[in-house]
Amino acid sequence: MGDADEPFSIQSVSKVFTLSLAMTAVGPRLFSRVGREPSGNAFNSLVQLEYEHGIPRNPFINAGALVVADTLLSRHDDPKTLILDHLSRLSGNPAVAYDPEVAESERETGFRNRALANFLKSLGNLENDVEAVLDLYFHQCAIAMSARDLARAFLPFANRGVNPETGAPEYAVRHAKRINSLMMTCGMYDASGGFAYRVGLPAKSGVGGAIACVLPRRLSACVWSPELDETGSSLAGTAALAIFTTSSGLSVF
Amino acid sequence: MGDADEPFSIQSVSKVFTLSLAMTAVGPRLFSRVGREPSGNAFNSLVQLEYEHGIPRNPFINAGALVVADTLLSRHDDPKTLILDHLSRLSGNPAVAYDPEVAESERETGFRNRALANFLKSLGNLENDVEAVLDLYFHQCAIAMSARDLARAFLPFANRGVNPETGAPEYAVRHAKRINSLMMTCGMYDASGGFAYRVGLPAKSGVGGAIACVLPRRLSACVWSPELDETGSSLAGTAALAIFTTSSGLSVF
Amino acid sequence: MGDADEPFSIQSVSKVFTLSLAMTAVGPRLFSRVGREPSGNAFNSLVQLEYEHGIPRNPFINAGALVVADTLLSRHDDPKTLILDHLSRLSGNPAVAYDPEVAESERETGFRNRALANFLKSLGNLENDVEAVLDLYFHQCAIAMSARDLARAFLPFANRGVNPETGAPEYAVRHAKRINSLMMTCGMYDASGGFAYRVGLPAKSGVGGAIACVLPRRLSACVWSPELDETGSSLAGTAALAIFTTSSGLSVF
Amino acid sequence: MGDADEPFSIQSVSKVFTLSLAMTAVGPRLFSRVGREPSGNAFNSLVQLEYEHGIPRNPFINAGALVVADTLLSRHDDPKTLILDHLSRLSGNPAVAYDPEVAESERETGFRNRALANFLKSLGNLENDVEAVLDLYFHQCAIAMSARDLARAFLPFANRGVNPETGAPEYAVRHAKRINSLMMTCGMYDASGGFAYRVGLPAKSGVGGAIACVLPRRLSACVWSPELDETGSSLAGTAALAIFTTSSGLSVF
Repeated sequence: MGDADEPFSIQSVSKVFTLSLAMTAVGPRLFSRVGREPSGNAFNSLVQLEYEHGIPRNPFINAGALVVADTLLSRHDDPKTLILDHLSRLSGNPAVAYDPEVAESERETGFRNRALANFLKSLGNLENDVEAVLDLYFHQCAIAMSARDLARAFLPFANRGVNPETGAPEYAVRHAKRINSLMMTCGMYDASGGFAYRVGLPAKSGVGGAIACVLPRRLSACVWSPELDETGSSLAGTAALAIFTTSSGLSVF
Repeated sequence: MGDADEPFSIQSVSKVFTLSLAMTAVGPRLFSRVGREPSGNAFNSLVQLEYEHGIPRNPFINAGALVVADTLLSRHDDPKTLILDHLSRLSGNPAVAYDPEVAESERETGFRNRALANFLKSLGNLENDVEAVLDLYFHQCAIAMSARDLARAFLPFANRGVNPETGAPEYAVRHAKRINSLMMTCGMYDASGGFAYRVGLPAKSGVGGAIACVLPRRLSACVWSPELDETGSSLAGTAALAIFTTSSGLSVF
Repeated sequence: MGDADEPFSIQSVSKVFTLSLAMTAVGPRLFSRVGREPSGNAFNSLVQLEYEHGIPRNPFINAGALVVADTLLSRHDDPKTLILDHLSRLSGNPAVAYDPEVAESERETGFRNRALANFLKSLGNLENDVEAVLDLYFHQCAIAMSARDLARAFLPFANRGVNPETGAPEYAVRHAKRINSLMMTCGMYDASGGFAYRVGLPAKSGVGGAIACVLPRRLSACVWSPELDETGSSLAGTAALAIFTTSSGLSVF
Repeated sequence: MGDADEPFSIQSVSKVFTLSLAMTAVGPRLFSRVGREPSGNAFNSLVQLEYEHGIPRNPFINAGALVVADTLLSRHDDPKTLILDHLSRLSGNPAVAYDPEVAESERETGFRNRALANFLKSLGNLENDVEAVLDLYFHQCAIAMSARDLARAFLPFANRGVNPETGAPEYAVRHAKRINSLMMTCGMYDASGGFAYRVGLPAKSGVGGAIACVLPRRLSACVWSPELDETGSSLAGTAALAIFTTSSGLSVF
């Protein structure tokens, strides 16, 4: 419905895909470098990183996504192409692409992410050059996709790792299940508890205004509306999903 | 199976029931005094409380359960009897009772909980006398029930608030759903993310060794084994539930 | 000048005297239970205590003063009388006394101090009963003295531990010197740096409006004016001392 | 005595000189961008910065020294030459110079300082380019001077801002006094309280093993011994100064 085919920056929704690729590439050892717990409130993110010796709390906070990007750089010659090919195939849209202006803008103003990456490097949890990790991260945030593209790309998470369009296994069954659990507990920044309470679906939001979600074994969905609430998630998107799960009775709870 | 009829101290599992009673008594305004977000790591619990002006992050950390107990004291003449009657009815076991020795032991050594209660009082988030709130809290932790009792008492959470034995609505549908979401994101102390990842069910653990859980619309269960892992949850109980959901494919994800 | 003979609650200024008595009673081992470092900003006081395993940063934050009071309870049969006798002798005023109404008011509303004391107890850094420690602490804060009394009682700190009126050694030379250093770095709550910058004298403030200070080898002084600045120290008192040291050139720097 | 003429990297001792130059250049407005309070324990430095909106606690922690360097870059065309000329003149040693190998090594491995600088930039408290600020900071740490040089360069702090060799006023009287107060409360990293307690002199240490100090109106001194204690200050140097002030009775307390 609406602007379902309008492309936008998927921003943090990209973290779900890079995590999926990293779990396939690295296996369970990935979780020696990044945790699986909600981060609590934002103000403690940096002290948490120091206190826990450079292990980010989960792969969806920025520090965790930087570590995930670092593992992709270590395992693949060209992770930027890998990610794009993956998303083109999943969405069925060959036009999925990086928006170079957005990536450049992130690079120029991303002082906080640059601070995090240097801090991770100082704590020994980045293998690659700081600027190379940031370049990959800024690019993944700048991927342009539509709500329809994202909803399709989320289908394997609702279908035990299998792409229902092609029948191809995109992720291991256990990985799909576990990524859903991480989205449920950590997917909505510091508001994952409230989102689980109101909506009750594993989901990932991005500051571009997208929220992609799944009901395991049933469906995937994506809403997009740029105005954000105070937690950084789409205001109208969250409301639409709350109405959807309440009126339909479709939720994991 | 096993010692399913052996009574033990349910400890923090009691927080699910007091929360349910408080949601019925107070309604959504309850969440102006206690949050719905995971707390992050333990070390910041006190600074978080101060930073967020005395609003505990969720009803399952001790500070939050003290606020919930405070609301029951304000709304009911005899909350101790109310809780016992509720659990006897749900479990079908009239012998559910407070263990006075355990309650007394908690009272004598509960310096940290007494610190939390006084801190909440100083921040304006307790209405009743500090010692009265602590007395109720120490008693709810000292309730003696068996694994079978707890599994039965959790059935309404798996059944949209209705007691399947009697057909009686124990909680509003929306409350049952929301308590499940709170158990999923906050039920296992600071290890809720890892538990969701490994087991994938809404659950609540207690330091007595119990873990009670539900699969919405399907079943409730309780495991009990006193040896605890480093996060304060039953070691064998968590392993048993992980094997159960992996081999059966029964989980919300 | 002015209301120099008007008695008021000395509040936290009492911490200097209890520390002096504890250093005499316990010796250097005292500093295995309480630190000697400034505490940084207030918001981290509780997390600091947990992070540093129950060792308060210095004897002038409330947690540190509670530990000091605990040592006096362990070493003396009647520390309340000990403290009063000490201050009567130093000030030359036999009317120095506890104000029972103030002590009772502290007891009834001191939820935060009660939280701290229970937290210290839970971390193993109080030997005596929590309420006994609080009772002593609430009484020491409720001592009624005048500005003239306090200035006289501070003379030994300016005179290498010797009471210049009587020639009696009240404290060891090294203790007097070290208490001065602790007042310089930690005496003014979280504003010790700013006070050193503006005034340049070892000093201790109390929320009753007093600031007592010394210029080693030269003088002691006390100002009293109840209006407090945002850091909890006397607004006019700080300004008066800043004018005094700037115009006279008398400061340790 | 000893290796008094052996040059070494002065490291953080340089922060005293850049602060002095910045106070002259900017005046009291400098302290709207950097505080004057001890920082408390190290673990909270980053969260403190965030909590206090990018205002470092004092000019001697790394974040504060980066802000000071930023002000010099904004006010002077060539702050590197300014600093060298200043130190050559004060020490009477025209050979004072930057050690380019040390500066380059700092640049290559200074991930934590780069994290801090980017974090300050993201919080709006750096005017200049992050790499330019870091370049100046890494150079000031790499200044090579001897203990004799540093002792001479500290003389104006002991002499109300006047260089006793030349009679030239190097700093305003009030600035010299205030820099002494900042050294007393904040000069020894997180061990300023313990150093004041043991030694009792305003001082600044560097991880190169130097401790420079003053007794106002009497003397300046510098000790150098590279082995560091757990707080990052010279182990033998601190002990030597403690013996010196105890046996001579020379201290501000």
